[in-house]
Amino acid sequence: MGSPVHRVSLGDTWSRQMHPDIESERALSGDVALNIHRVFVRALRSLGSEEQIAKWDPLCKNIQIIATYAQTELGHGTYLQGLETEATYDAATQEFVIHSPTLTATKWWPGDLGRSATHALVQAQLICSGARRGMHAFIVPIRSLQDHTPLPGIIIGDIGPKMDFDQTDNGFLQLNHVRVPRENMLSRFAQVLPDGTYVKLGTAQSNYLPMVVVRVELLSGEILPILQKACVIAMRYSVIRRQSRLRPSDPEAKVLDYQTQQQKLFPQLAISYAFHFLAVSLLEFFQHSYTAILNQDFSFLPELHALSTGMKAMMSEFCTQGAEMCRRACGGHGYSKLSGLPSLVTKLSASCTYEGENTVLYLQVARFLVKSYLQTQMSPGSTPQRSLSPSVAYLTAPDLARCPAQRAADFLCPELYTTAWAHVAVRLIKDSVQHLQTLTQSGADQHEAWNQTTVIHLQAAKVHCYYVTVKGFTEALEKLENEPAIQQVLKRLCDLHAIHGILTNSGDFLHDAFLSGAQVDMARTAYLDLLRLIRKDAILLTDAFDFTDQCLNSALGCYDGNVYERLFQWAQKSPTNTQENPAYEEYIRPLLQSWRSKL
Amino acid sequence: MGSPVHRVSLGDTWSRQMHPDIESERALSGDVALNIHRVFVRALRSLGSEEQIAKWDPLCKNIQIIATYAQTELGHGTYLQGLETEATYDAATQEFVIHSPTLTATKWWPGDLGRSATHALVQAQLICSGARRGMHAFIVPIRSLQDHTPLPGIIIGDIGPKMDFDQTDNGFLQLNHVRVPRENMLSRFAQVLPDGTYVKLGTAQSNYLPMVVVRVELLSGEILPILQKACVIAMRYSVIRRQSRLRPSDPEAKVLDYQTQQQKLFPQLAISYAFHFLAVSLLEFFQHSYTAILNQDFSFLPELHALSTGMKAMMSEFCTQGAEMCRRACGGHGYSKLSGLPSLVTKLSASCTYEGENTVLYLQVARFLVKSYLQTQMSPGSTPQRSLSPSVAYLTAPDLARCPAQRAADFLCPELYTTAWAHVAVRLIKDSVQHLQTLTQSGADQHEAWNQTTVIHLQAAKVHCYYVTVKGFTEALEKLENEPAIQQVLKRLCDLHAIHGILTNSGDFLHDAFLSGAQVDMARTAYLDLLRLIRKDAILLTDAFDFTDQCLNSALGCYDGNVYERLFQWAQKSPTNTQENPAYEEYIRPLLQSWRSKL
Repeated sequence: MGSPVHRVSLGDTWSRQMHPDIESERALSGDVALNIHRVFVRALRSLGSEEQIAKWDPLCKNIQIIATYAQTELGHGTYLQGLETEATYDAATQEFVIHSPTLTATKWWPGDLGRSATHALVQAQLICSGARRGMHAFIVPIRSLQDHTPLPGIIIGDIGPKMDFDQTDNGFLQLNHVRVPRENMLSRFAQVLPDGTYVKLGTAQSNYLPMVVVRVELLSGEILPILQKACVIAMRYSVIRRQSRLRPSDPEAKVLDYQTQQQKLFPQLAISYAFHFLAVSLLEFFQHSYTAILNQDFSFLPELHALSTGMKAMMSEFCTQGAEMCRRACGGHGYSKLSGLPSLVTKLSASCTYEGENTVLYLQVARFLVKSYLQTQMSPGSTPQRSLSPSVAYLTAPDLARCPAQRAADFLCPELYTTAWAHVAVRLIKDSVQHLQTLTQSGADQHEAWNQTTVIHLQAAKVHCYYVTVKGFTEALEKLENEPAIQQVLKRLCDLHAIHGILTNSGDFLHDAFLSGAQVDMARTAYLDLLRLIRKDAILLTDAFDFTDQCLNSALGCYDGNVYERLFQWAQKSPTNTQENPAYEEYIRPLLQSWRSKL
Repeated sequence: MGSPVHRVSLGDTWSRQMHPDIESERALSGDVALNIHRVFVRALRSLGSEEQIAKWDPLCKNIQIIATYAQTELGHGTYLQGLETEATYDAATQEFVIHSPTLTATKWWPGDLGRSATHALVQAQLICSGARRGMHAFIVPIRSLQDHTPLPGIIIGDIGPKMDFDQTDNGFLQLNHVRVPRENMLSRFAQVLPDGTYVKLGTAQSNYLPMVVVRVELLSGEILPILQKACVIAMRYSVIRRQSRLRPSDPEAKVLDYQTQQQKLFPQLAISYAFHFLAVSLLEFFQHSYTAILNQDFSFLPELHALSTGMKAMMSEFCTQGAEMCRRACGGHGYSKLSGLPSLVTKLSASCTYEGENTVLYLQVARFLVKSYLQTQMSPGSTPQRSLSPSVAYLTAPDLARCPAQRAADFLCPELYTTAWAHVAVRLIKDSVQHLQTLTQSGADQHEAWNQTTVIHLQAAKVHCYYVTVKGFTEALEKLENEPAIQQVLKRLCDLHAIHGILTNSGDFLHDAFLSGAQVDMARTAYLDLLRLIRKDAILLTDAFDFTDQCLNSALGCYDGNVYERLFQWAQKSPTNTQENPAYEEYIRPLLQSWRSKL
């Protein structure tokens, strides 16, 4: 299964770009306990003052405390302004009184909270000197460090069974006038002085910083590796599984030799690579921006916010869809938990909702696109305009009215398809802005106009995000010019990613006749040819992800290909085979024997 | 939540068309044990002689035996010719010797097999007088009726954990030269005489009849009700859940008032109704054809096969996608098992694979379409041609080159959109045939040519199936002319179903300029208007599905709307709250106390 030389050389490309934390996360397969403890640490480092970090960071590092991050409530998730938990400053004692005023204010979902955590970072509406100051973060001890019982005023427990993450005790938390010292409000960007005076040091968005950190890290740390694992499993199984005959005289064919199977799996493989390069460059941009932000330079924040929300939404959506596609491509065995695939899919499904629900995130991208587009319109002549963020620079790039492709092979040109994606993105953004303006000009207030055009904005935001992935992949290819063999293999995936998207969204390209029907057919020809070409390298390209058998935990996906033996062996170990069947004694035996006695 | 009058009147329309078995299945919520026992009975009645039915049917009815249907093997599923289990006739003893010659011949997946069944209907390759005769069905006793132990030569067990269906003991079965009497081969369509002479009474497809029966019944009995439940839960939750403000001065809005939420849920509601009417008419057609087939009249079989495979593939695909959409539309709470939604989704996911993998089924439809198309081409002039099956009669209907729509409201015309779908289906079928012919004419053999065009055939088959649902919905509407109020409400859903499909596949309509870009924009305007109109009736339209709270089993979907109270109460009952936490004593206490001792 794949030449070692080839594996090593792709593997090197891989690890050179990898963060050590991400490597260890990959090796541990993601299923580690106390994951949210790390989110607490990220939030502390983002929002805490130097003194606070000096106090709490070592406690966390040594796990002298077990911490969680309590933001979402029973009644509110993504809409943070709606959070109901209150933190009222009492100047007399220099304490904050943290309180859940309603049932729906109950914190709900924080991981490690249900049965483990001793401390929570509670996001609450700050009230000081009678004024509401918006969401701020407070360190609240919740369980005794002596006997682990809930502290006074704390009602706490587990939220019950979920679709996955059985290893995580997602919990609930109600706070009944719980008092914490003034020093427990994280105060890098805002402080409450002893007398209750509120001092703001950052922007209104500062408190969202931990979410940006978490979002960026989970792309390469949690979301993408799951799709990659699904690809490895499905691809390996597809060269072992045989079904039907391509010709009556042939032996049964490997399912990967069927065009329809290639169409299911290869776009997922291409996306795995597209997202890999994107996640790497996003991480670089993030590290650069983060340092600036901690030093109160917020100029990168709009671009960082738009990129991180858009890529979180797109990657979680496409990875979930892709992993489910891989699962189904394994037929019935993909439904068995022994395949490892069901849990990959159900884990990814969660990522479409956690850390910001995808529709809401896409609409935040859309607002950024509307703003950016209006910026290009403000100064049509010589007046200097504020420069556009790099991800939307294409809004002012030269545009073509018609795609110049004349034959299928023309679609294998990164410049051609990048331009095509940019063209469609610009058209849809423009269209969405025009719909918005038409409604407001006809008398709708701006909020109503926004709601009545969100379906249109959503479409524009998604196409913009797709453009970003295509552009990112082509840029990554350019950097591989010293490794032509790898570059050639990866270019096919880049081509496939771009063209597959064009075919899936062909209406957007045909709408203004940028592409003709004949050109779409050319693109399809190019696409089908690519499937055949990629077939040769498909196993190598998944081996290159470099997951161990243990980490894949799949009877279908092991390196040795002993699928059926392993399925059979693993099934024997199931408790349903090693334990008694209580239903027999209770129901089946009485039923069957009642008939025997009548004979 | 909805006027009782309205509910009753839609409810009546509903139940008048319902089969009593389906009603009871709905009431029991689908989660019943020994489901496959019924599949055995269906197969017996389809394939058994009158004597065989007289012998075994009462045993099944009284549950004197517990039966299962053993077809799928470890190494083969949908490709039945590849099944390896053998049944060799021994004329000396007038017995069949049933045998699993390899590991991959192990029967794998049959429900109720792992720990319950006493008898299995085993599908095996018949070998008699030295000749292989293809797949036939044999009744094989597998467990003792006295003590339930496996009979001699039988190795049996459970296949282990699955994505869902924990209540079903899907099992494996290996047969080591197990002998059954000659009378145990089901012999309505084929017999083996005592001397080993093979007598064929039906067509080559006769043995597939049970699969057609099961497929048709599961559409309305198992697949569709699950999507309908998901719609009820998501719709009810969406008028309780509030998020963000449409205007800064307003209270937080119900999430169902957001256009993006409507776009998530209403197409699923429309599809629930489209599939309901389709399933009803398919069941009628099936009952008619089935009687004919049992009497050796096979003329309806090609149409029945094409319709049942196509609708099984489309309904399972769209219902799965729709239920997942409903689940995600409930945000974080949709990920909690207390919402009832995760299990609805994971149950539906299975239906994309069981009873025929969807891609394979779509390609069977495609073969039917190719044949039907070629039939229309064979006799262009006056020669009388064999009449086309009703579902493809549109292949010879008058066609327009351009859609005549001039404004958004024109898209609310069933004739206009039915014609549009027919136009696109014809174009894609024609295109797929031409690609096939081009390849064979350029020298590819027909099997290779088929494989290299399957992606194109798949697209044509899917569009044909969508056409069938649109056409079926419009015909059902026509029958409601005496109930204009209901007809008006349902017409909006029909319009939405047709237009949503046009927008989702707009490339197919723009490709040959049947629709212009401006017309697609009109269709989108009509679509967005429909969302607003359907909002008013949305709750009524899901109440009309008439599921009890108990049957929905969802903290989010109860009729009284007490979402948060119920979530909180149900969570308290979780074993994670009522039982000790073993991890505390073993890991957390030693860890935290090791630090205390060092202080």
